Amino acid sequence: MLPLFALPVQASKPFKVAILMFDEVQIIDFAAPYEVFGQAKFEVFTVSKNGKPVTTAMGLSVNPHYSFANMPEADAILVPGGDTGKVMHDQQVLSWLKTQQGKAEHILSVCTGAHILAEASLLDGKAATTFHRALNNFEKNYPAIAVKRQQRFVDNGQIVTSAGLSSGIDASLHLVSKVLGEDKARTVALHLEYDWDPDGGFVRANMADRMLPQNDYSWPDGILFDRISAFGDETRWQVKYKVTTSATAEHLLQVYKNAMAKHADWQLNDTGAVLQAEWRGAAENAGWLTSAAVINTAPDSYAITLNIYKRP
Amino acid sequence: MLPLFALPVQASKPFKVAILMFDEVQIIDFAAPYEVFGQAKFEVFTVSKNGKPVTTAMGLSVNPHYSFANMPEADAILVPGGDTGKVMHDQQVLSWLKTQQGKAEHILSVCTGAHILAEASLLDGKAATTFHRALNNFEKNYPAIAVKRQQRFVDNGQIVTSAGLSSGIDASLHLVSKVLGEDKARTVALHLEYDWDPDGGFVRANMADRMLPQNDYSWPDGILFDRISAFGDETRWQVKYKVTTSATAEHLLQVYKNAMAKHADWQLNDTGAVLQAEWRGAAENAGWLTSAAVINTAPDSYAITLNIYKRP
Repeated sequence: MLPLFALPVQASKPFKVAILMFDEVQIIDFAAPYEVFGQAKFEVFTVSKNGKPVTTAMGLSVNPHYSFANMPEADAILVPGGDTGKVMHDQQVLSWLKTQQGKAEHILSVCTGAHILAEASLLDGKAATTFHRALNNFEKNYPAIAVKRQQRFVDNGQIVTSAGLSSGIDASLHLVSKVLGEDKARTVALHLEYDWDPDGGFVRANMADRMLPQNDYSWPDGILFDRISAFGDETRWQVKYKVTTSATAEHLLQVYKNAMAKHADWQLNDTGAVLQAEWRGAAENAGWLTSAAVINTAPDSYAITLNIYKRP
Repeated sequence: MLPLFALPVQASKPFKVAILMFDEVQIIDFAAPYEVFGQAKFEVFTVSKNGKPVTTAMGLSVNPHYSFANMPEADAILVPGGDTGKVMHDQQVLSWLKTQQGKAEHILSVCTGAHILAEASLLDGKAATTFHRALNNFEKNYPAIAVKRQQRFVDNGQIVTSAGLSSGIDASLHLVSKVLGEDKARTVALHLEYDWDPDGGFVRANMADRMLPQNDYSWPDGILFDRISAFGDETRWQVKYKVTTSATAEHLLQVYKNAMAKHADWQLNDTGAVLQAEWRGAAENAGWLTSAAVINTAPDSYAITLNIYKRP
């Protein structure tokens, strides 16, 4: 229906974005920002170390536009994530990134792309975030970085790091906002039919499963776990497992109770219930309750349900 | 943090998804579903007419895995959108699609990909949706299709069509839900850090700008419009233009009033305000108000603001 009026073409120097490509790059990490920047009429191109085809995670073959040697200068550099195990230790990539830090106005990472920036020492002394499942290791491996867990992306001025995968869409819209204003970013989001919240939005790392106790178990031999459901939100989370074993339900619950007994910050509540147990959080976990229940569903088959929730 | 337990590898026949690739395919249309399906552990591959490299909209070069001639059978076919002007009239593509209809369990289109399905007569007698800005033409060009404007995707059983661009993420999660259950789809969405609403979610075509009157204007010669903002939600929308002209503000408002006077379903309210006017909707527009205001911002420069909103 829009535009209601003819829009003149705006002649101005194009804003250029270079997207780093490497083998095992995550598809949505580079492709969704490419789309966002393209819709904002940025000039987008891909670049890899040698300009040869790269194979993404899950096997898509892409031909980069340029190599490090022949790429044009870019106003912004996007560093996607994926399986970054190799690329984050590639000295040629890291020194290219350091050079870009001195040239590009903006650097943006998506998901585990933050690990590449971290290895290039671009994040030292700065706040950053990454893929929700990588946050713990990120914090451990890069003590000079202030890890933020409560944000979909973290803006340090020149560098913006985003959380996992689709968070790159939001961080890219944020960059559009910085370059062309929030209205342009909102317009791009609406064109993409993407429900963008410039003030924050969904943060995976905020979900209540972050509070689930990390346990070491001594399960009976031959036990098989199959996770059959796992979801929730910021205040509650439920995980269900189908468990195949010849052990009894009582024994399974006891193993869980033994593991939980090692946590000083979780106190067993005596609820009197059979085949389920409840713990009340203390210290860092104050305000949270967690429970475990075992149900015999068939011969040698059980459902174990773990719940965690914030008390209202 | 998850998994809390070791998960056994589930050995079963892989579910195969073929993604149609063509020149000018929209990047997010094919790439985001690729990511969703890959995360669901589907086996994903790309296929084009001849298997040669394709150049997407905005210039990404991708090497398809297969041609029509050598592709493996697929359980699902994804038809992305983009600039479909050529591909939707390519008889080889259309007959391939018809063949796939007889083979694949599921067919999914994203954005203007629905036009390709429509040209292949796969949607005749069915309900479907497409990119929000293509809905009117879609309805006009394919009278045998029941066009749905209020849904992020439309499920017809074998065929799912989705609205524009990022809607493909939701429709792909929906397909994962159909194949592996809603929990698996929720788990994939959470892994993607995507705020998925299986019951609907954001529908661009529902935004209030759909109610803005479509006018023919007789603007003064040499007038230049630059849209400087356009956003809102389901109940209200605002568009602002910067207008450069030597005409007076009074004249500009009069041109707008003249155009609005041709709509029997919009009645002018006499508000007594200077340089602004308000209309009350009738018939299909009952319950809506729209207004126009002109402000002189600099010599020969005006801001025109159009508002539309649903009365509470």
